[in-house]
Amino acid sequence: MTLPDFPDVRILVTGGTIDKVHDPRIEAIVFARDGATQIPDILAMGRCHHPVIQKVLLKDSLEFDDADRTAISDAVLAAPETALVITHGTGTMGETARWLADRVQGKTVVLTGAMRPHSLSASDGSFNLGGAVVAAQTLPPGIYGVMNGRVLPAAHLDKNVAAGRFDI
Amino acid sequence: MTLPDFPDVRILVTGGTIDKVHDPRIEAIVFARDGATQIPDILAMGRCHHPVIQKVLLKDSLEFDDADRTAISDAVLAAPETALVITHGTGTMGETARWLADRVQGKTVVLTGAMRPHSLSASDGSFNLGGAVVAAQTLPPGIYGVMNGRVLPAAHLDKNVAAGRFDI
Amino acid sequence: MTLPDFPDVRILVTGGTIDKVHDPRIEAIVFARDGATQIPDILAMGRCHHPVIQKVLLKDSLEFDDADRTAISDAVLAAPETALVITHGTGTMGETARWLADRVQGKTVVLTGAMRPHSLSASDGSFNLGGAVVAAQTLPPGIYGVMNGRVLPAAHLDKNVAAGRFDI
Amino acid sequence: MTLPDFPDVRILVTGGTIDKVHDPRIEAIVFARDGATQIPDILAMGRCHHPVIQKVLLKDSLEFDDADRTAISDAVLAAPETALVITHGTGTMGETARWLADRVQGKTVVLTGAMRPHSLSASDGSFNLGGAVVAAQTLPPGIYGVMNGRVLPAAHLDKNVAAGRFDI
Repeated sequence: MTLPDFPDVRILVTGGTIDKVHDPRIEAIVFARDGATQIPDILAMGRCHHPVIQKVLLKDSLEFDDADRTAISDAVLAAPETALVITHGTGTMGETARWLADRVQGKTVVLTGAMRPHSLSASDGSFNLGGAVVAAQTLPPGIYGVMNGRVLPAAHLDKNVAAGRFDI
Repeated sequence: MTLPDFPDVRILVTGGTIDKVHDPRIEAIVFARDGATQIPDILAMGRCHHPVIQKVLLKDSLEFDDADRTAISDAVLAAPETALVITHGTGTMGETARWLADRVQGKTVVLTGAMRPHSLSASDGSFNLGGAVVAAQTLPPGIYGVMNGRVLPAAHLDKNVAAGRFDI
Repeated sequence: MTLPDFPDVRILVTGGTIDKVHDPRIEAIVFARDGATQIPDILAMGRCHHPVIQKVLLKDSLEFDDADRTAISDAVLAAPETALVITHGTGTMGETARWLADRVQGKTVVLTGAMRPHSLSASDGSFNLGGAVVAAQTLPPGIYGVMNGRVLPAAHLDKNVAAGRFDI
Repeated sequence: MTLPDFPDVRILVTGGTIDKVHDPRIEAIVFARDGATQIPDILAMGRCHHPVIQKVLLKDSLEFDDADRTAISDAVLAAPETALVITHGTGTMGETARWLADRVQGKTVVLTGAMRPHSLSASDGSFNLGGAVVAAQTLPPGIYGVMNGRVLPAAHLDKNVAAGRFDI
């Protein structure tokens, strides 16, 4: 039996909680000192072997400025793939989605992240990334977020800070 | 801002590795003695609050017979939702998908499972279920599997036993 | 066969990293908002059923003042048991040990803690607490710390901050 | 400040549940196919840097015969250290302890293990090994088990199979 043609998927890493680790020296949740991303570990745990991973940034999205968002949109535009996932902080995921909606045509771009770092165990990162990788392959061109098991178009992608959720 | 209308999703639990636990008394990976399913725990970890969960079976799919598959297809047909996820053992996921393809029309049904039980940590169950919940909402009617970050139509849903994968 | 008489053990909880949790709302490692301690969870994981657990404080030990240390030494003195474990932040574990050495006679008191919170998984808390519970039952009266698989008398109990260790 | 002289500790690995892993191909809890032991990982998690680790066997202790126990007692006798920990299956831990009690003089030997494999997370292995490493340094010469936060002399070391405990 021949498998169907699968679309190529590229994951652009930009940081966010999903990618943070515990630093015992300063008792804080920060990015790894060596600049390593945790996304390959999530994919390995999910036995998901196919995406290309490209680290664009490793920052808290609350600190993103226009230069950061330009780096992200440039990476989306430069990618040979039309199916993209962006791992991103939850704080300004919606802003980046709407930035991309103004600049990207003809590609399916899915932003995702986590409320609890993958490295702490019992994280929502794996569930969310699993959803985003599928959404990037199944949705029509456009900019979306995948959080809480829901697909949110860019215009509706905003964190309910009090609830820590995007789906209400 | 008004959120988009989200489709209702029902998860039918049938067992499989994703739902097994370690039993120290017999040193084995089995279903919980009290018949409890782990799927609510995966959803809670993924901060996914919306699916209705219905336990149909709690069995190893290698032991499924026609009566079991009838129970599954009956549950799909009886469900008021048109978006369904079925958690299932990997051993005969393809057989059940094709059983459903012969009996179900007009619904999007996504089978998923795991190679490592959720309860053991570092499981692929969360990644897979996250993908399946999204796929059930985004794919056109039909029967599919979601494993390894890929969407496989029923006709192509088969485990490569040697590799422990569905995508090759 | 009759089991040997086991000494009674009391665990005094004072806080420290071992007892912290991740708070997604503020992206920080803090004590649980409801004031709950994680020590019962560590004991349950270790299948250790016997110690009495008494919460004295739930604070970062860098913030301890004399009133806090008085509360700890009062609890040690008031305890009916002669075998005590104190879960404690690593920052000033040595200061508290020496405070107790000046005030407590005839009891075996073992301080312990962790560099990584138990709730984050892959923590040293379980290993350390397992050692402390045994040390409290096997050491002669005195004040000790147990960290890194070593028993350190109060006079030698100091964290090497750069290395994050007590045994060098 | 000069640290106290610490005793050298050797850990003899013999297998048992503590050292097993999940094998997705056969859906079972077995020893790693490459013969690797998980004990270094437990020590690393516990930030315990000092013990020498020697793999003697990697077997289920229910399958031990006299040749296996001879290999263990020979390793104890040959070790330059007088403080030894033996990681061991829970099934016949007592038999090995009493075998050693007949053959070893002048050394402190502490057997330990786990009811749930370390590799599955939420295991008692870390708590038990932390206790055993301390007990080997603090107890007088003799053969003991450390399980459930208790020190059990060889004559009293027996698993209550129904309860999955050694301390009742």
